[in-house]
Amino acid sequence: MSNLHLKSVEELAPLLESKQLSPVELTKEILEFAHQSQEAINSYIDFYDDEAIKAAEKAEAEIANGDYKGMYHGIPLALKDNLYFKDKVTTMASKIHKDFTSDADATVVEKLREAGVIFTGKLSMHEYAWGITNNNPHYGPVRNPWDTTKMPGGSSGGSGAAVAAGASVASLGTDTAGSIRIPSSACGIVGLKPTHGRVSKFGCFPLAWTLDHIGPMTKTVKDAAAMLEIISGFDHRDPTCVDRPIDQYVNYLTGDVKDLVIGVNEDYFFKQVDHDVENAVRKAIDLLVSQGAKVEVVKIPSLQYAEWAELVTSLSEASAIHHSNLKTRPEDFGNDIRLLFELGELPSAVDYLQAQQVRRQLKAEFAEAFKKVDVLIAPTLPVVANDIGDDTVDLNGEKVDLINNIIRFTGPSNLTGLPALTVPCGFKGKLPIGLQIIGPAFKEGKVLNVGYAVEQCNLMEGKKPEILLANR
Amino acid sequence: MSNLHLKSVEELAPLLESKQLSPVELTKEILEFAHQSQEAINSYIDFYDDEAIKAAEKAEAEIANGDYKGMYHGIPLALKDNLYFKDKVTTMASKIHKDFTSDADATVVEKLREAGVIFTGKLSMHEYAWGITNNNPHYGPVRNPWDTTKMPGGSSGGSGAAVAAGASVASLGTDTAGSIRIPSSACGIVGLKPTHGRVSKFGCFPLAWTLDHIGPMTKTVKDAAAMLEIISGFDHRDPTCVDRPIDQYVNYLTGDVKDLVIGVNEDYFFKQVDHDVENAVRKAIDLLVSQGAKVEVVKIPSLQYAEWAELVTSLSEASAIHHSNLKTRPEDFGNDIRLLFELGELPSAVDYLQAQQVRRQLKAEFAEAFKKVDVLIAPTLPVVANDIGDDTVDLNGEKVDLINNIIRFTGPSNLTGLPALTVPCGFKGKLPIGLQIIGPAFKEGKVLNVGYAVEQCNLMEGKKPEILLANR
Repeated sequence: MSNLHLKSVEELAPLLESKQLSPVELTKEILEFAHQSQEAINSYIDFYDDEAIKAAEKAEAEIANGDYKGMYHGIPLALKDNLYFKDKVTTMASKIHKDFTSDADATVVEKLREAGVIFTGKLSMHEYAWGITNNNPHYGPVRNPWDTTKMPGGSSGGSGAAVAAGASVASLGTDTAGSIRIPSSACGIVGLKPTHGRVSKFGCFPLAWTLDHIGPMTKTVKDAAAMLEIISGFDHRDPTCVDRPIDQYVNYLTGDVKDLVIGVNEDYFFKQVDHDVENAVRKAIDLLVSQGAKVEVVKIPSLQYAEWAELVTSLSEASAIHHSNLKTRPEDFGNDIRLLFELGELPSAVDYLQAQQVRRQLKAEFAEAFKKVDVLIAPTLPVVANDIGDDTVDLNGEKVDLINNIIRFTGPSNLTGLPALTVPCGFKGKLPIGLQIIGPAFKEGKVLNVGYAVEQCNLMEGKKPEILLANR
Repeated sequence: MSNLHLKSVEELAPLLESKQLSPVELTKEILEFAHQSQEAINSYIDFYDDEAIKAAEKAEAEIANGDYKGMYHGIPLALKDNLYFKDKVTTMASKIHKDFTSDADATVVEKLREAGVIFTGKLSMHEYAWGITNNNPHYGPVRNPWDTTKMPGGSSGGSGAAVAAGASVASLGTDTAGSIRIPSSACGIVGLKPTHGRVSKFGCFPLAWTLDHIGPMTKTVKDAAAMLEIISGFDHRDPTCVDRPIDQYVNYLTGDVKDLVIGVNEDYFFKQVDHDVENAVRKAIDLLVSQGAKVEVVKIPSLQYAEWAELVTSLSEASAIHHSNLKTRPEDFGNDIRLLFELGELPSAVDYLQAQQVRRQLKAEFAEAFKKVDVLIAPTLPVVANDIGDDTVDLNGEKVDLINNIIRFTGPSNLTGLPALTVPCGFKGKLPIGLQIIGPAFKEGKVLNVGYAVEQCNLMEGKKPEILLANR
C-alpha cells in the first residue's frame, strides 16, 4: 500500500484488524519514511528500528491469532523524548541528561505498550520542554513540514512535525504552557491537553509540576479520543493523578452541536490576534452556529493576570528542579533556557503564592462561566508559525515578543488544569491555523465532540505538507 | 454547686443531662469566674455575657423538654479570636483588624452552636496567631495560670490559660506550627491538632493556609474526642477539607494499649530536651509498656530539614497574606510579627518549592514508619513555659533561642498534616510537661486512645493551678 504515512490511526486500524495490512509492513514503511524525512524536518532524536520490527512481528502474530486489542494495536508511534522507556536513554533534548537511563517505563508508555503500540523511536523537543526560540542547540532545530524555514512550535515540536509529516502515525506531547497545543496548531494537527490529573505523569521528566500535562497529538480527533481512553486513569505513582472513571471518549464523537452553547471571551482571547487567524476561528464558530449551536459572550476578568501567574509559576518550579545544575554547570544548558532558569531564581515566595491565588480565582471564574456555556472557543495561537531562530513574531505587520504571544491563549488552561483541544481550522498562506476548545474539568468527551464537529467542516480541504509528498 | 469552673465537660454533661445542674447556673458561674480571672491571666478579649445567658436559657428549656443534644449541650465555651462569629467583631488580637466583622459564622462555630454550646466570649492569642514572645502589644500579655510570670505558650495562649484555669470549660485553638499543642502543653491541658482536612477552616483567619489546622483544647481526652466528633466533616467552603466519614472518637477510649507498638525517634524528638521533660515522657512510655505496649525505634531522616521547611513555608504564606498591609501600614503591627512578616518577604519561590519537596519526603518517611508502629510518642515541647517577654528559654542551664525550640517538636506534624495530640504527663517544678502522640492520617481515634491511657496513669496527681483556687 502507498502513502501509509499519510493515514490516520482511524484509517489504518480497520486495515490492521482485518489483516489487509500487516503491522510489520506498516512499521517498516513508517520507519523508512521517518529516516528519509530527517534531513528535511529532523523530528527524531533516536530510532528503535530493530525493536520496532520485533514488536510489529509480535503484534502481527497476536492479530493473526484473533487477539486484536483495539484501535492502537499494531500502530507505530514515536514519543517525545521526556517520556521514560525502561532501560533506554531519555535525553529531554539536553546535554546534561544525554545519557540518562530510566529503570521503568512511564505510565503512559506502559499503557500504550499494553494496547499493542509499536515504538519506533523518540522525538525531538525544546531542551527540557522549555525555551524561547530554542532552536535545539544540542540536536539541531526541528522544522515545520508545511514550510521548513518555520518553527514547528514547541516544546513538543518533534511530535508536531512528525505527526504532520507522517514520520509517526500519532504521538504524545507534554504541555506546561501550551507545549501540546502550540506545535499541534503550528503543524496543523489535533492536540489535546486533558484535565490535570486525568493522565498519570509518572515517568515524565517534570518542567513545572503543577502545570505539566501529558496528552495526545494526532492527525484526527477520533485518534486523540481513542488514545486518551488508553492513557487515562489513576496511578498512585503520580500524586497529582485523580481517581475517577475513564469515559469512553470515542462514543462522544457524534458531531452533533445542536443546542451547544459556545462561550466567546472577546476581552482576552480575541485581542491582539492576527486577522487571518481571527477570521478563520470566527468562520468555524459561524459554521457551528449554522448547525444549531449558540454563542454567549463570557467575562473572565482574572485572565488579565494569567500571563504573569503562568510565568511566575512555571519559571519558579522549573528553577527549583534545575537549581543545582544551574549553579554547578550553567554552560551545559542552551542559552535561552539558561536565561529562563536564571529568571526563575528571581520571584519571591510571596510572588509565587500570589500567583497561586490568581490560579484559584481563575478556576472559580471559569467554573462560573461554565454554568452558562458548554465550552469556550478561542484561537489556539494569536499567530501562525514563526521563522526558525527568531524570538519575535509578526502580528498584523508588527514585530512582537515571541514567548508572551505564543503562550498567551494556551497558558490559562495550564493554570486552571481545564481540558483544552486544538483542531486545525484553515490556513494563513501555507501555514495552518488552530482553533482551541476549552471545557469544564473532566469533560474531555464534550470538548472532543466539538472538535470533531469542526473537523467535519473540512476547513483544511484535505491539504498535506507539500515538501514531504514531493520527497516520496 | 461549687468550683464548677474546675470541672471538665465529661463531669458536667451528666449533671446537665439529668437536670441536676442548669446551663444558666453553669454559664453564670463560668462567666463570673472568667471576669474575675482577667486580672490574673487576661485570657479573654471579648465577653458575650448577655447573649450567653440567653443561649443558656434556651439550652435549659431544650433539655427540660427532653431534647438533649449530647455532651456539649449547655456547655459554656469561649473560642480563640481568629474564628468568626456572624455579625461580631473578630480581632485576631491585632490593631489592623480590631473592628473586623464577619457576615457568617465559622463552620466550627456553626457546628458547636448546633450541638448546643453556649458562647461566653472570645479568647486572646498571639497577634495574627504568630509571633515570638508576642506579649500582646494591643491587648496585654496572657499569663500562665500555673505561674503568672510565665507565658501560657502560643499562639492559642488565651485558650490554654482559660481552659487550665476554668474561665472556659473547653475551647478551640488553631495550630500552624504548634499553636494548639504548645499552649496546651505549657498550661497542662489536652490539645489535639487533627489531620489536615479533617476540620473545616472556613471562617478562620489564615496564618499559613497549607499548615493551618483547627482543633480542641480541653481538660480531658474524652472532652477532646467528643468535640472532634462535633467539629469534623466535609465542607465545600474550605477547599482543603477532605470528604470522608467521621469516626466515633469517644468509642476508641478504652485505655487498652496491649500490643500497641509505640515508635520512638531518638535522633530528633529526644535530642536537646530538658532532662525533666525527657524523664517525664520516658516514664509515661514505661508505664504504657508495663500495660502491654511495645517500643520500636524509628528513623525519619528528613526531620533534619523540618525546621527549615516549616519556617520557609509559614513565613512565606503569612507574608503573602499580610503583604499589602506590611507595605502601607507597617507601624500597626506589633514589633515581633512585623519582623516575621518582613522575613517572609525574603525566601525565593525556589526556596518555597524546595520546602514543599521536603514536606512530600517527610510525609513519605512518616508513612513508612507507620507501617511498623501504631503511633509515635515524643515530648510536645523540649522545655516548659518561659518567662513572659523573654525571647530565650532555658534548656538544661543554657539560654537558647525561643522560636526554634518552641516549635521544634510540633512543626513536623503541620508539615505532614498528621494528627498530633498533647496530654499532660507531669511537672517540672510547678510547670506542666506535655507528652505528644503522633499518628497516621485520619487515625485520631487511635491517637486519642493512647492519650487516654496516659491520662489514666494520673501523672498530674489531680493538681490544679494554685493561684486561681486561692482567688475563689
